[in-house]
Amino acid sequence: MNIVCIGSGNVATHLAIALKAIGADIVQVWSHDSKNAEILAALTKAEPIGNWDDLDRTADCYLIAVKDDAIASVAAHLTDVKGVVVHTSGATPMSVLSGVKNGSGVIYPLQTFSKSKAVDMTAIPLCIEADRESTLEKIKVIAQLLSPNVSVITSVQRSILHLAAVFACNFSNHLYQLSNELLEQYNLNFDLLKPLILETAEKVQSATPAEAQTGPARRNDQETIKKHLDLLNGSPELQKIYETLSNSIKKTYL
Amino acid sequence: MNIVCIGSGNVATHLAIALKAIGADIVQVWSHDSKNAEILAALTKAEPIGNWDDLDRTADCYLIAVKDDAIASVAAHLTDVKGVVVHTSGATPMSVLSGVKNGSGVIYPLQTFSKSKAVDMTAIPLCIEADRESTLEKIKVIAQLLSPNVSVITSVQRSILHLAAVFACNFSNHLYQLSNELLEQYNLNFDLLKPLILETAEKVQSATPAEAQTGPARRNDQETIKKHLDLLNGSPELQKIYETLSNSIKKTYL
Repeated sequence: MNIVCIGSGNVATHLAIALKAIGADIVQVWSHDSKNAEILAALTKAEPIGNWDDLDRTADCYLIAVKDDAIASVAAHLTDVKGVVVHTSGATPMSVLSGVKNGSGVIYPLQTFSKSKAVDMTAIPLCIEADRESTLEKIKVIAQLLSPNVSVITSVQRSILHLAAVFACNFSNHLYQLSNELLEQYNLNFDLLKPLILETAEKVQSATPAEAQTGPARRNDQETIKKHLDLLNGSPELQKIYETLSNSIKKTYL
Repeated sequence: MNIVCIGSGNVATHLAIALKAIGADIVQVWSHDSKNAEILAALTKAEPIGNWDDLDRTADCYLIAVKDDAIASVAAHLTDVKGVVVHTSGATPMSVLSGVKNGSGVIYPLQTFSKSKAVDMTAIPLCIEADRESTLEKIKVIAQLLSPNVSVITSVQRSILHLAAVFACNFSNHLYQLSNELLEQYNLNFDLLKPLILETAEKVQSATPAEAQTGPARRNDQETIKKHLDLLNGSPELQKIYETLSNSIKKTYL
């Protein structure tokens, strides 16, 4: 299996290293950032390239992991390559690759990646999609090498998954941030909340979120809710978030 | 160390079992629910009681872990006991115990407890407070037996911690619930999001939430934000939550 990796950011790095580890040949790493291309190429024993004229057009798979708004322009250079062309974005329709002649699709890893933190790829759900049945089979083979957790989904389902991930993860992280700011105002260390944050995420690994829900809004404890809104008197924005989410919880359990 | 446990719910159960395990004598378990009192008493080799006339008034510590709105009425029966009287509530001021003559205070465990799930008490931050220095020393001894992570805080700080925990945990869990409902609408399994939820909580154990923040609002990616609001067209409530939290993220990173 010969793979060209397009991009050298977090997703590109984790996928390319994982593919290399399971025996794939990363033949080239393309990046507009030559320094990053060199780093990832060195890690995967690939050739770093920055010029499309140098592209090896005979690889089995072209894995695009660049910023969402760069996928279309990158794909324009891959219309007539031999192998399948896949992107890895949650929010980008597969149709952005419609100019590709020999098969295209998506491998969407449902995980958040940081270069500095190792990730167990085998624990990551991979959601795949392709423009034709034969391409889907090829993509499935690659995905299943990386993770036992592969699901075939549609573009609409992928956009919903991406949206759900924004709610469950981006927004949750922002709530951690808001609680951190509250604690700082009162000379309290965010460390105090860390075990509770972890346990909250661990609980829904086995229980449903509905079963795990606790707190004043869940109990419809108006007295505590009023106390909390009073404590937030100087922060109309936090009051708005508190009320919006509390009302949504109350509505769920009416 | 002789302890009377007042209450038989999740917090009472976890604390009483942990205290028993480190060598304390749980002499009695009081509960208005005689069945629950018997279960916890059996687990801790204590005497179950339901009648205040049967209370052993000579114990070293009376640990109140009942619903917030029942603490005052329970404390009215403990005004002249020999030992210290502590409650375990995040949202209740220490002054609810002001009728207690021989020392009162709070041990607030910052964790969410389920009876069915074991919790490592040594990983739980305990925030303590007392009405006088000598009582604080007694409470500190008990707390430090349970966890190495003991902080002395004020009632105001405790109310802020409780509020911050509502943001970081109750509200995050509700966001998991909303994402679960979104996925169900499109025939997608919540299992797909679980690794991402766990990683999001794990990231802030070492990085700050500000460092860990990702997503369309963080990048100020208007196009994706608009797509997401369109996907939520049938759910004005979810649109409101999405906009409120996205605007708050954008404001944070302006």
